[in-house]
Amino acid sequence: MVYLTRREHFNAAHRLNCEHWTAEKNEEVFGKCANRNWHGHNYEIYVTVAGEPNPDTGFVINAKELSKIIQEVIVNKLDHRNLNLDVDFIPNGMQPSTENVVICIWNELKPHIKGCKLHCIKLQETDNIYAEYFG
Amino acid sequence: MVYLTRREHFNAAHRLNCEHWTAEKNEEVFGKCANRNWHGHNYEIYVTVAGEPNPDTGFVINAKELSKIIQEVIVNKLDHRNLNLDVDFIPNGMQPSTENVVICIWNELKPHIKGCKLHCIKLQETDNIYAEYFG
Amino acid sequence: MVYLTRREHFNAAHRLNCEHWTAEKNEEVFGKCANRNWHGHNYEIYVTVAGEPNPDTGFVINAKELSKIIQEVIVNKLDHRNLNLDVDFIPNGMQPSTENVVICIWNELKPHIKGCKLHCIKLQETDNIYAEYFG
Amino acid sequence: MVYLTRREHFNAAHRLNCEHWTAEKNEEVFGKCANRNWHGHNYEIYVTVAGEPNPDTGFVINAKELSKIIQEVIVNKLDHRNLNLDVDFIPNGMQPSTENVVICIWNELKPHIKGCKLHCIKLQETDNIYAEYFG
Amino acid sequence: MVYLTRREHFNAAHRLNCEHWTAEKNEEVFGKCANRNWHGHNYEIYVTVAGEPNPDTGFVINAKELSKIIQEVIVNKLDHRNLNLDVDFIPNGMQPSTENVVICIWNELKPHIKGCKLHCIKLQETDNIYAEYFG
Amino acid sequence: MVYLTRREHFNAAHRLNCEHWTAEKNEEVFGKCANRNWHGHNYEIYVTVAGEPNPDTGFVINAKELSKIIQEVIVNKLDHRNLNLDVDFIPNGMQPSTENVVICIWNELKPHIKGCKLHCIKLQETDNIYAEYFG
Repeated sequence: MVYLTRREHFNAAHRLNCEHWTAEKNEEVFGKCANRNWHGHNYEIYVTVAGEPNPDTGFVINAKELSKIIQEVIVNKLDHRNLNLDVDFIPNGMQPSTENVVICIWNELKPHIKGCKLHCIKLQETDNIYAEYFG
Repeated sequence: MVYLTRREHFNAAHRLNCEHWTAEKNEEVFGKCANRNWHGHNYEIYVTVAGEPNPDTGFVINAKELSKIIQEVIVNKLDHRNLNLDVDFIPNGMQPSTENVVICIWNELKPHIKGCKLHCIKLQETDNIYAEYFG
Repeated sequence: MVYLTRREHFNAAHRLNCEHWTAEKNEEVFGKCANRNWHGHNYEIYVTVAGEPNPDTGFVINAKELSKIIQEVIVNKLDHRNLNLDVDFIPNGMQPSTENVVICIWNELKPHIKGCKLHCIKLQETDNIYAEYFG
Repeated sequence: MVYLTRREHFNAAHRLNCEHWTAEKNEEVFGKCANRNWHGHNYEIYVTVAGEPNPDTGFVINAKELSKIIQEVIVNKLDHRNLNLDVDFIPNGMQPSTENVVICIWNELKPHIKGCKLHCIKLQETDNIYAEYFG
Repeated sequence: MVYLTRREHFNAAHRLNCEHWTAEKNEEVFGKCANRNWHGHNYEIYVTVAGEPNPDTGFVINAKELSKIIQEVIVNKLDHRNLNLDVDFIPNGMQPSTENVVICIWNELKPHIKGCKLHCIKLQETDNIYAEYFG
Repeated sequence: MVYLTRREHFNAAHRLNCEHWTAEKNEEVFGKCANRNWHGHNYEIYVTVAGEPNPDTGFVINAKELSKIIQEVIVNKLDHRNLNLDVDFIPNGMQPSTENVVICIWNELKPHIKGCKLHCIKLQETDNIYAEYFG
């Protein structure tokens, strides 16, 4: 088994805010992340798949094919979007935290990975914070 | 003369859209950057000052003091904000492009730099794009 | 289970030297790292916790809270310090290698992580060397 | 158990091309990577070993010794070489994909790691692609 | 005047070798860079233009347009190519050093930059080496 | 004229402290940087030279030769050293600030650069702070 990782990126806006909480509680828990006019990030996605290299190509998966799938299925729906409002695979009212978004990306991407195993998705929100999900 | 550079960062939302243009022209020029629900970035600011090192401290400027000034005057007004809506020193209706924002930061920061010369401000919007302004 | 990682950093001095060895053996094993007048590094700490995202916040742990804990419990005791002399949770005479320091950080931080599981601490000493500890 | 990682790098040329395929199929699968005049990369190798820190040195392995072994056994044979033509431990006709090369590096390096366990080798081909092998 | 920089990248093979020198002199001057079977790099190009931001767009140049020009005129001719053999704008027999290639890129790109001034091209060959040309 | 830059690095300890000041004033100005038991950094040096590429080699300067000179003249004297105590070209009692050290490196390196012009030395102390000197 070899693990192959492909990185992609997108830029998006979001806001952390719990609708059934008071403004004070939102401010206390989320601080500046609750700003009603949004803020945003340059996100990096790392998709790791596992498998045996194909004897002809030496590939677990063709990284260009993998990139194309991630672009079509994930990046096109997230890039230059608002994670609270614009993304069909992030349920209405779900908090668009790094943790929740990485799970949503996993669920959306998984059916499209064929011929090898989706092993891990890592979503980096800033240089200081990232989340990883293994399914 | 020695040049000293201090880096700070902020996360913000923005949108590129020219109000006196049609939606089609905005789409044509700005593409996904015109998304009405905003997108955002992890911005890095690099502030460079020039001067002679002080014989006692060896400093052109005390980098901790410089950091504090940039935090108070610039970062606190930009971090987790919307560059189109929330920032008093970015004029209403001005396009919050990397180029325009770096000029606004220069004008806002300049009166606060004392004892040495503000030489350059660099604003990095993504790994692929940055703007520099020398006054 | 989602894994959330928060990065913090500190700058410190240290020296590798085994007191019950001859100077020659120390020189042979540690080379320049044995310099009696110390050397130092910009260290990066990556703290990874595991858990289920909270339904309201979307957080495994509030990354700002995690950052505050790491700052108070770890970084304040390591930043701009001498790892051989100044740190109460690095035992006197223990070699302050990347491996040993990462274990000390784990033991010191662990009791403060509540509501999720401390999974891994990674300590990066240079661009070329890092150690990871899983408890 | 602590995991220690050492990074090394090399620059090399290669080409992806399956000899028993037509030019059209090679072009379709490998695209520009099949260019008959080669292309190349700045590769980074991350070697991770696992073990208990030695009580005297604090080391799982002496990182300078590990670096020397990786240089002698691996980097000297890959750096400024052609991965298809010049490397005795990459079998003739094997596709020099990131996946295959990382396995070859593992097999070549493994007998030289003593006193601790070789845990993982990661080979980064570009900022966007890397492969990991755990034996 | 504001300076806007756009980064692009390409992967290429090359070899440093002076045809009218003996093998010994080539070995002495170029060392491993003279390997007859080539080696390669992940190159980064930084293109900096200077001008006044347009009042409507806030742009010195539309960075997406600039990216498209660099892709079409430069990257398509360099990416996954051999710099000694495959590139029409690198003269036959010219040494494909970082310094020479950055000049060739400048000369090839310059006629395509309109509405602002081409200020600098920086070509990064490895993390340790880059060349800059200002025309 | 082309500008060629070579990066090298070293790890060192230092302390900022003005001997003719009180402990209180040192604490006020330098804060944690005044720790009597030292702290340290991973430093990066970027040396930029300017000249015409040689017609045979394509080099402004042979980057391997430049690296060797920087290693011998600068890095060997700074790496794993104490900048306050161990370095003959940093005068006794001079504050080892980034600004002062970059000037000392310039003065020490300049006589060794032949056949092209030493243009700039940049010394990076942390990801957030660097100093540049042009002579």
